[in-house]
Amino acid sequence: MHRYERLADHLRERIQAGYYRPDDRLPSVRALAESHGVSLSTVQQAYHQLEDAQLILARPKSGYFVSPQRERPALPPVGRTAQRPVEVSQWEQVREGTCILPDTEIFHLGRGMPDIDAPTLKPLLRALSRVSRRQDLVGLNYDTLHGRPELREEIARLSVGHGCRLHPDELVVTTGCHEAISIAMRAVCEPGGIIAVDSPSFYGALQSIRAYGMKAMEIPTDPETGISLEALELALEQWPIRAIQVTPTCNNPLGYTLSVERKRALYALAQRFDVAIIEDDVYGDLAYAFPRPVTIKSFDEDGRVLLCSSFSKTLAPGLRLGWMAPGRYLERALHMKYVGTGSTATQGQMAVAEFIREGHFEPHLRRMRRQYQRNRNAMLDLIAEVFPLSTRISFPEGGFLLWLECDASVDTVALNTRLMTEGIRIAPGVMFSATGKYRSCLRLNYSLFDAATRQAVKRIGAILSESDPATAEDRIRASVLQESLSS
Amino acid sequence: MHRYERLADHLRERIQAGYYRPDDRLPSVRALAESHGVSLSTVQQAYHQLEDAQLILARPKSGYFVSPQRERPALPPVGRTAQRPVEVSQWEQVREGTCILPDTEIFHLGRGMPDIDAPTLKPLLRALSRVSRRQDLVGLNYDTLHGRPELREEIARLSVGHGCRLHPDELVVTTGCHEAISIAMRAVCEPGGIIAVDSPSFYGALQSIRAYGMKAMEIPTDPETGISLEALELALEQWPIRAIQVTPTCNNPLGYTLSVERKRALYALAQRFDVAIIEDDVYGDLAYAFPRPVTIKSFDEDGRVLLCSSFSKTLAPGLRLGWMAPGRYLERALHMKYVGTGSTATQGQMAVAEFIREGHFEPHLRRMRRQYQRNRNAMLDLIAEVFPLSTRISFPEGGFLLWLECDASVDTVALNTRLMTEGIRIAPGVMFSATGKYRSCLRLNYSLFDAATRQAVKRIGAILSESDPATAEDRIRASVLQESLSS
Repeated sequence: MHRYERLADHLRERIQAGYYRPDDRLPSVRALAESHGVSLSTVQQAYHQLEDAQLILARPKSGYFVSPQRERPALPPVGRTAQRPVEVSQWEQVREGTCILPDTEIFHLGRGMPDIDAPTLKPLLRALSRVSRRQDLVGLNYDTLHGRPELREEIARLSVGHGCRLHPDELVVTTGCHEAISIAMRAVCEPGGIIAVDSPSFYGALQSIRAYGMKAMEIPTDPETGISLEALELALEQWPIRAIQVTPTCNNPLGYTLSVERKRALYALAQRFDVAIIEDDVYGDLAYAFPRPVTIKSFDEDGRVLLCSSFSKTLAPGLRLGWMAPGRYLERALHMKYVGTGSTATQGQMAVAEFIREGHFEPHLRRMRRQYQRNRNAMLDLIAEVFPLSTRISFPEGGFLLWLECDASVDTVALNTRLMTEGIRIAPGVMFSATGKYRSCLRLNYSLFDAATRQAVKRIGAILSESDPATAEDRIRASVLQESLSS
Repeated sequence: MHRYERLADHLRERIQAGYYRPDDRLPSVRALAESHGVSLSTVQQAYHQLEDAQLILARPKSGYFVSPQRERPALPPVGRTAQRPVEVSQWEQVREGTCILPDTEIFHLGRGMPDIDAPTLKPLLRALSRVSRRQDLVGLNYDTLHGRPELREEIARLSVGHGCRLHPDELVVTTGCHEAISIAMRAVCEPGGIIAVDSPSFYGALQSIRAYGMKAMEIPTDPETGISLEALELALEQWPIRAIQVTPTCNNPLGYTLSVERKRALYALAQRFDVAIIEDDVYGDLAYAFPRPVTIKSFDEDGRVLLCSSFSKTLAPGLRLGWMAPGRYLERALHMKYVGTGSTATQGQMAVAEFIREGHFEPHLRRMRRQYQRNRNAMLDLIAEVFPLSTRISFPEGGFLLWLECDASVDTVALNTRLMTEGIRIAPGVMFSATGKYRSCLRLNYSLFDAATRQAVKRIGAILSESDPATAEDRIRASVLQESLSS
């Protein structure tokens, strides 16, 4: 890490912790250089980085200030879920959304797709090419069930970053986080069993519950504080739940991160009712806060947490490289890995291990976190401008996904059909519910905030505004005002 | 295909069809050149190729002759299976066999590992390297559930070779044949359901049955004529079987290929009892006969056959690239694909599609088929020499796997443990049974027949001979003879 990056992190931490508050004036470049024993240009570079992340702003001739508190749009309300375990439907919606080729003309604004065009990713392509060119027979051979040792070593080393001290032998490399979650569910729950999930919830997890003949107990989830522990406790008392499946850090689709206290409380609940926790941490490394939030796995003293993650959101989903730390369920997880895919493709593992070992992963993550945070802010500004006023929007603390709730009259499945004719796609809210709720909600991706994204968002906003009662009323009011002014 | 290869194929076909019989003299080089209108050197090249495959031999000054009929060692007897559906055990044996890294010192003579060091495979490594170097974003992106269109087109085109006319849209690319079989089982059978399997059977399929809470109905299988249709019919009458899982072409582990008539009869049985057929064709392209045997899928008129295959045995298992044609179960198969791995790694698909499109696949297959047939013969000769006389051996019609049955007193699990101390591994027979039968059997791999292989086989033979009653008796007789001669 460069000196200026260390300084920027230090300042970011202080801003996020509230030591510097919104609109506070920051120390002058000279003062900071002196107090930290660094050069003026180092301080300037650090300030530029924070400016870039829109955490601070420069006022000509006055210096640097903490950005004013963002006026947050209203968050979506807590969803109402069925108060019993349910079978999962909505496969048709999910299937439709996953059958679009990346090289077609459709602009898919709903998918969980990261930006894969960053320059910091180039060394990965070089590593992939090198692994093939080396004509190394290991890369063509079957891997073991566990996955390549050199990759597991890197994952174990990085686990310190989220509060764990995982050993390579505890890890299983998987074909994406998808396989990790799929394995985890089958490792802890029999067909017919019940799994508690946050709601709205990642549709891949919901569809696994469906495919393996299990039932989903959806737990109301607050867009700011996360899954309701009270509702979860009630559900655990009433139903023979086998596992809790959650995405507690940079939640998909709501964007919240459960506080450490609530993570601990969730773990304590799981202990009390002796159930497993399937922790999806796939967006965890993309948290905007520094250092990144700890995982529930980091408190795991009896091996009941099955931590699942991947390089699909941080590097590239086309690699299909995930991993899991299944705790006490390791043996069952290995069996499920064996019957699912046998082993994971070898060359990708070797290339990613090289990429991490050569030190490319951290700089890449830093870059992407900054980009995604900047895009979030820009996307929120744009939506506030072009969407109807009644729209409620999540405030993601990491990742690159936004959850919106439109006026109750809006049907986002119908919206999606209409958008398709214009070459645009969103992820309609029903995909995130076991029973087709969230019909007026949608998920948008802001991994990129280029001209095409802006145009698509504007187009969605325009269509929504056409039929929005409030907007129509506003318009009338505006035209009345216009008339009274001109008369 | 070169002219000499076409001629060699023509001659091979006539030898295999019995037009030329063992020890028959073949036409002179000059006569053949004239009758086929080709050059003398073309005929010579064709004869060299057949000599290389040990189908013919040259006798100095007399010309070329069809190789004498091989004296075949006795085949293993038909196994006795439980006459009811059973739960599958033996996971520990399978797990142990799959947790050895390819880059360790263990010489694994039991695994289904092809030779990945052939020069005809080099263009694949170049294609892989090129796909990465191209820095094509498609290769890093999520693929669709179906798999890359360019690869499905090649697979559909090649399907004519086994009597099918598959359409790319019928195909699903999978993470190895393992995932294809796993998907197929879940697509046709619920937990608790019964699947009929040949016996001995591929342990991966058996373990899938176990993992998904199904039961296996093992059907006695003849090492020459294949799965007993009579026993299968009886089982279908008695039990609510949902699907028949078979490897009818170049069976693993027995090596037989079901005749076309028996394949048709098997399909008719499936129709009569309205069950699905899961056809594992993973070794089918490695049949020594030309043209390769047709698949059961080629008769499929009502979509009940789920054909599963991969490039793991023909190209390289480390790619984890398989595919399936699930017939009428396509929609359920796509759902199972989605919840298992989401999609298949993208770059490998693109590289294999390039490799096939550029015409490298057929020459590679031809080379490997010749090599494996040559190795089979050499391996059979060596085993006849160094194993106890009581050993019964399969006579594979394709692929690179041999099934041996030792004296009933032999325990191949114990043998494997002993061999491990010498850095050698075999696949003990119990892995191929749902209930730990075939304890005196083992599977050996002859994809390579190098010095290390020969040494390992000799070592196994020596250990088996130590305790073999017949060998001991022979030895006494030999020494008595020796004594009587020297006295």
